[in-house]
Amino acid sequence: MFYHDRRLQYKVRVDKPNPAFAKMLQQAIGGVEGEIRVCLQYLFQAWGNRGPVKYKNMLLETGTEEIGHIEMLATAVALNLEGATNSLKDEIVGKNPLVGAIMGGMDPRHFLSTGLAAMPSDSNGVPFNGSWVIATGNIAADMMANVHAEASGRVLATRLWEATDDPGMKDMLAFLIARDAMHQNQWLAVIEELGGLKQQLPIPNSFPQSEEVQGFNYSFVTTNIYKDQESYGRWAEGPSIDGKGTFQMVPGEPMGDIPILPPPAPEGHAQVEQMTGAAGGLMDKIKDAL
Amino acid sequence: MFYHDRRLQYKVRVDKPNPAFAKMLQQAIGGVEGEIRVCLQYLFQAWGNRGPVKYKNMLLETGTEEIGHIEMLATAVALNLEGATNSLKDEIVGKNPLVGAIMGGMDPRHFLSTGLAAMPSDSNGVPFNGSWVIATGNIAADMMANVHAEASGRVLATRLWEATDDPGMKDMLAFLIARDAMHQNQWLAVIEELGGLKQQLPIPNSFPQSEEVQGFNYSFVTTNIYKDQESYGRWAEGPSIDGKGTFQMVPGEPMGDIPILPPPAPEGHAQVEQMTGAAGGLMDKIKDAL
Amino acid sequence: MFYHDRRLQYKVRVDKPNPAFAKMLQQAIGGVEGEIRVCLQYLFQAWGNRGPVKYKNMLLETGTEEIGHIEMLATAVALNLEGATNSLKDEIVGKNPLVGAIMGGMDPRHFLSTGLAAMPSDSNGVPFNGSWVIATGNIAADMMANVHAEASGRVLATRLWEATDDPGMKDMLAFLIARDAMHQNQWLAVIEELGGLKQQLPIPNSFPQSEEVQGFNYSFVTTNIYKDQESYGRWAEGPSIDGKGTFQMVPGEPMGDIPILPPPAPEGHAQVEQMTGAAGGLMDKIKDAL
Amino acid sequence: MFYHDRRLQYKVRVDKPNPAFAKMLQQAIGGVEGEIRVCLQYLFQAWGNRGPVKYKNMLLETGTEEIGHIEMLATAVALNLEGATNSLKDEIVGKNPLVGAIMGGMDPRHFLSTGLAAMPSDSNGVPFNGSWVIATGNIAADMMANVHAEASGRVLATRLWEATDDPGMKDMLAFLIARDAMHQNQWLAVIEELGGLKQQLPIPNSFPQSEEVQGFNYSFVTTNIYKDQESYGRWAEGPSIDGKGTFQMVPGEPMGDIPILPPPAPEGHAQVEQMTGAAGGLMDKIKDAL
Amino acid sequence: MFYHDRRLQYKVRVDKPNPAFAKMLQQAIGGVEGEIRVCLQYLFQAWGNRGPVKYKNMLLETGTEEIGHIEMLATAVALNLEGATNSLKDEIVGKNPLVGAIMGGMDPRHFLSTGLAAMPSDSNGVPFNGSWVIATGNIAADMMANVHAEASGRVLATRLWEATDDPGMKDMLAFLIARDAMHQNQWLAVIEELGGLKQQLPIPNSFPQSEEVQGFNYSFVTTNIYKDQESYGRWAEGPSIDGKGTFQMVPGEPMGDIPILPPPAPEGHAQVEQMTGAAGGLMDKIKDAL
Amino acid sequence: MFYHDRRLQYKVRVDKPNPAFAKMLQQAIGGVEGEIRVCLQYLFQAWGNRGPVKYKNMLLETGTEEIGHIEMLATAVALNLEGATNSLKDEIVGKNPLVGAIMGGMDPRHFLSTGLAAMPSDSNGVPFNGSWVIATGNIAADMMANVHAEASGRVLATRLWEATDDPGMKDMLAFLIARDAMHQNQWLAVIEELGGLKQQLPIPNSFPQSEEVQGFNYSFVTTNIYKDQESYGRWAEGPSIDGKGTFQMVPGEPMGDIPILPPPAPEGHAQVEQMTGAAGGLMDKIKDAL
Repeated sequence: MFYHDRRLQYKVRVDKPNPAFAKMLQQAIGGVEGEIRVCLQYLFQAWGNRGPVKYKNMLLETGTEEIGHIEMLATAVALNLEGATNSLKDEIVGKNPLVGAIMGGMDPRHFLSTGLAAMPSDSNGVPFNGSWVIATGNIAADMMANVHAEASGRVLATRLWEATDDPGMKDMLAFLIARDAMHQNQWLAVIEELGGLKQQLPIPNSFPQSEEVQGFNYSFVTTNIYKDQESYGRWAEGPSIDGKGTFQMVPGEPMGDIPILPPPAPEGHAQVEQMTGAAGGLMDKIKDAL
Repeated sequence: MFYHDRRLQYKVRVDKPNPAFAKMLQQAIGGVEGEIRVCLQYLFQAWGNRGPVKYKNMLLETGTEEIGHIEMLATAVALNLEGATNSLKDEIVGKNPLVGAIMGGMDPRHFLSTGLAAMPSDSNGVPFNGSWVIATGNIAADMMANVHAEASGRVLATRLWEATDDPGMKDMLAFLIARDAMHQNQWLAVIEELGGLKQQLPIPNSFPQSEEVQGFNYSFVTTNIYKDQESYGRWAEGPSIDGKGTFQMVPGEPMGDIPILPPPAPEGHAQVEQMTGAAGGLMDKIKDAL
Repeated sequence: MFYHDRRLQYKVRVDKPNPAFAKMLQQAIGGVEGEIRVCLQYLFQAWGNRGPVKYKNMLLETGTEEIGHIEMLATAVALNLEGATNSLKDEIVGKNPLVGAIMGGMDPRHFLSTGLAAMPSDSNGVPFNGSWVIATGNIAADMMANVHAEASGRVLATRLWEATDDPGMKDMLAFLIARDAMHQNQWLAVIEELGGLKQQLPIPNSFPQSEEVQGFNYSFVTTNIYKDQESYGRWAEGPSIDGKGTFQMVPGEPMGDIPILPPPAPEGHAQVEQMTGAAGGLMDKIKDAL
Repeated sequence: MFYHDRRLQYKVRVDKPNPAFAKMLQQAIGGVEGEIRVCLQYLFQAWGNRGPVKYKNMLLETGTEEIGHIEMLATAVALNLEGATNSLKDEIVGKNPLVGAIMGGMDPRHFLSTGLAAMPSDSNGVPFNGSWVIATGNIAADMMANVHAEASGRVLATRLWEATDDPGMKDMLAFLIARDAMHQNQWLAVIEELGGLKQQLPIPNSFPQSEEVQGFNYSFVTTNIYKDQESYGRWAEGPSIDGKGTFQMVPGEPMGDIPILPPPAPEGHAQVEQMTGAAGGLMDKIKDAL
Repeated sequence: MFYHDRRLQYKVRVDKPNPAFAKMLQQAIGGVEGEIRVCLQYLFQAWGNRGPVKYKNMLLETGTEEIGHIEMLATAVALNLEGATNSLKDEIVGKNPLVGAIMGGMDPRHFLSTGLAAMPSDSNGVPFNGSWVIATGNIAADMMANVHAEASGRVLATRLWEATDDPGMKDMLAFLIARDAMHQNQWLAVIEELGGLKQQLPIPNSFPQSEEVQGFNYSFVTTNIYKDQESYGRWAEGPSIDGKGTFQMVPGEPMGDIPILPPPAPEGHAQVEQMTGAAGGLMDKIKDAL
Repeated sequence: MFYHDRRLQYKVRVDKPNPAFAKMLQQAIGGVEGEIRVCLQYLFQAWGNRGPVKYKNMLLETGTEEIGHIEMLATAVALNLEGATNSLKDEIVGKNPLVGAIMGGMDPRHFLSTGLAAMPSDSNGVPFNGSWVIATGNIAADMMANVHAEASGRVLATRLWEATDDPGMKDMLAFLIARDAMHQNQWLAVIEELGGLKQQLPIPNSFPQSEEVQGFNYSFVTTNIYKDQESYGRWAEGPSIDGKGTFQMVPGEPMGDIPILPPPAPEGHAQVEQMTGAAGGLMDKIKDAL
């Protein structure tokens, strides 16, 4: 179960409110790179954890920390919206300051729907979507998902950091950037503790590789029509990263047939001509012609 | 631009059609772990690629290959639906075979909407969503997203492999599992070519770490109310994975204030009592009491 | 900021795992009536709270409690999935137990995507959607949203209670039903503390009612073609609930004009005939004919 | 079945077209607080109504009225878009008036997708979503959902009223605000007719409260780490709103165990180390350590 | 504005309730081929209509009719759910009839969320989505969208007709199938009235075709790698359907360059190696090599 | 399977980058009228094709061409974003150029999420949705869906063409407009080859029209309350388009009963008053009163 302290994990200060920046901050709350996603992702990974329980514990810890990050960002959005309904009045066009603010880059729902507060949506107002939460039950797959989440989250935070001159906002973002640095390292530390990348790859490492179709598990397939190896690189030669094969480049070539499906079932009510082949000659004729 | 060959990249054969398995296969087509996602992900990463062009080339190659994987799986769904409107007739309840098929685990839209063919949806019929496509413009972040996508995709494929006894389906899945093994290695090979994890971390490596709030970039924050270090592990001691710090465990403690927002703006039409503080005494009194 | 205790708020025990019931429980996790929704709803209401701070405190309290409810339900789903890949083997059709389980009412993603654990989705696998989170900044509107959320949540929980014979599950649901009873009372207690329904209605009570179009704020408009007052009831006579008017029934009648829009702008590229009115005579003629 | 009159329920006049205000009006059409939602909500409640048929009749009446409100707002959007492709030309930057209009706060789809007309989307262009329609089959739960819908709808309408200086738009909104006042009263009149809040609470009132886990149905659970009663209020003392209990405040404390799930099923293909517990010592050891 | 009659447009009778068929009927209510979509589509086309007003009138007429079709289908769903919580008891597995019903193909939300009534969702429980509503402001484009909607709707209705043996349901569907036949004809009658396909094509016919890149407006581009004209047909020879050109088949060939984007902007925080080109040699070198 | 050429199908050149136009172009990539939709639509129609195989071939050809159109547009977006983070600096308000750019109509995710590149989303940032892909298995229904897709796509492209003064962009759009002209003709050529509209209508033509409820398949039902035939037109007289009936206009009149559903099932936990009819008198009384 969960508890809270009314104080924030880190200080949140806005020196000069900016409704357009409030809109941008929403990406870090309810966007695919945002804190609601990582919060639920780590918690669902913890709650569904099977295997060594220490990973469940760790995931709970960091999932809980992330709730506090949503809280910080939601506070930052509200503070950036202070005066939104009049501060842009003189800067932009229009006699009506509210419409002017929308024209000036404010999210209209920050006024219309929330009364100047944050929403669980991204910077375009697209609502948070539960499908973004990855928890596969395979710990290596989940750690990779977590590294990706923190990497895209840190990229986002650095871009937000670049987009503001507000000292308070820069400070808050610098804290979140630091946490994202730690979290990237943290998830990779799990991989290291489990024996390292070579032992964990290919994910899942519990599938017998002898069952794979051999010859395609370490081959870079080129689909370039000229087959000129312009995509040559580390992935096309040398030992594979998992140490279990050797990279090679092979031309993409069809190994399967032309797939022909049987005529439609009558109860599916295709057109008569589809069932009889009337339009283009008889079905059999067509097949003969292939 | 793009071309096609009417033959499949690898053979697709269904020995015993199974509409319930067709429904499961949809996860590999239109699910978050599926082929439409990786196809668009690699292509959008390629199309937006900035920096060494060899990575754009490589991403185009593999993105193009993935179109052919969607094609294979869509063919497999259609073949598993052969006879769906009558084959389950005798196995399950009901006088009406179509309703019986739905009762027997078939996706109703496989009959109602497509006339026995695949859809760009997952195994619950939830449509593919473009928000799953990750292309950040940061190549290391994108490679991590790609490793995650292939890891969850390979986990899915091995589970589908376990869920079927059909030799044709097992063979097709064994091919896709092999490709997913390659692709995991492939994306990590990019990281290696770029200098390896230490050089690439923390992502983005172009942000000056001196700007981070120091002391929090390599600390595991425990939010456990007992602070009993039950989450102790590799992530809490020793050098960080990026080699730029030393892991430590620190207790989660609030460093910020209790956030209090100003009263509502009049034009936002909160309740009168919110604006006057009438219900709970004057706003000032309340603040004093904090 | 937030903390956790690894123990659950209330005991979660599953005596006889049931994958079909696991699927039904998802509605209480990620459905529109579920716990993720109320958790985020109360927290976002707290974080955006303006006005007497005691309500912010209270919302934080209950929002935090709800995280623990998600945790309980996620645990219940995982426990109900124990043995899912073989327990239904003998009960239903098919040689393959996994496909049999899907045919038997299991959510396929509980095996394919999570490896037998919960997801932030509803009982049909539709992902949680952030648009369900209501936080308007008007405390009375929000309290009504909260009563609704708890009412539909309690209805759901009682239906789940009816749908299981498992003593452990019935006990857990009986706890959640009790909490939903409290929470309904709790949100209405805020309305009472603020002066009661009469003082709070109509929401928002800060809008001057003299600005409303008079004559329509306490009239039940009948749209029935026969105007036979078949919908007569409390809402059509007597004093209004807010004590500020008297209910009456009035026939629905158009007070506005037939709306005619000007011809299309040329750069919008409607058909030529739309712009010239060629097909149906000249635009002016048509307007004359109205 | 349904009929229409080509005239509007209330007059819609736009004195000075404003594309940015057209974008804001979309929230009242296709947003979660909007008219499509209440229209479908009341109609689906009517169509699924079980129990006293008078409520079905009444819901049909008001659901039908709401179609006309969508019509009014859609007309208002179209009228606000008159001249959108050139009117902003001189006010803002850029040589190209269309791009200028987008820069000036217009929804780009109002030009690109509809040719200057309304869409069933919100003010950020997020499409209407059927999941917002609440119809539980429990009339008290549904009435609470309806009060909430009208409360948030009226809050929205008052904010739109504040955001415009256009006399025609202010008049139309004043009409809709009046209707929202009536509708809030109307739904609460149903509760009164059914015996009042005390008789209807807790919803559903058909569940035997003796089956609830006693001691938690009237207790405010504090999750604050300091247990300092800072959230003290009406909800923590005195008789409950439903008259069936007495409010009290209790500290949040775990009553359940630490949940430990069994190891993964082999066919789910977790990592080998999860199944053997190799990385962190044997699974049994870990459990011993708890 | 709108009115209603409490009687249905056509009789709805269910002789033998079937919860699995109720689930299938949802596709016709809230699916992409369903009645909510066409209802809103015709109404939004009417409300945004510019040009000859007779089309606005006609669209209003049929849009209003469609509300009554949703009503019929919603009634049919509710009637098919009668006894759903016990009727399947004896037919399928399990001691608990509710779980048995889910296992037997029922939509779980038909019990859990609605108490045995319809929802604005499709047959997989995916909510209706406003993005399906097409109203472009170009009448020919809209008519084509309408023909498509009615064609896919009639295909769906015939499949539902095949899927049931219930005489009442077959009768209701036979009525809807008849209406879909009329509506297909109706929308095409608009095209005929406007001068026929030749005059209306290519849509929009108000764009000067001389501005098109000539040589590609009547050419079938083959992307087949073998260029063997296997796709030869009416679309590859003879006069074009709009009578303004002659079909020909041309091989797909690139007319553009290899697109190379400049290096990333520093504030976007790509990896250092992307900005310097370090990994693969200098950016210029790479470009030289192309 | 599929191949690619690194060169674009047609040249893409941006003379003067414009971030606001980049946002508008997104509609043509990931919008409902966009290229991802038609690409997947034609490919899924091909992969699920049953009946004459020549149509499968043709659909594959054009579906493959469309991938290259997404590529062109994604390139155009990236080129329009060149300098986005500083070019608007001097034109609009604010000291911070990034915030200024957002205020100036840029999609914030073009900077925050992609680092100045395209996304699979529409011009409001709403992600591409797989539900837009139509593939019914009925070739005439699918051709109509395709004509609609190309018609709305061409309307969109002409509006984009109007919205830009950039010669490079105008040229690229003129190419896409030409292709959309061809594709509209192409899909209608299939109808012609299959015997023409009369033979193909009503879709599906394999359903025996004698099973339709006669009298309603060629009748225009007027729902106008005045029955004044104001919607008179080609659809109300003369032979039907399919040549199988004669249009007539009939007044909309209810042919069904007032639908009354039985009381709620006890396990669905409606309110007590719904089950007993207490509030409004006994259920029977109410029914009597109807």
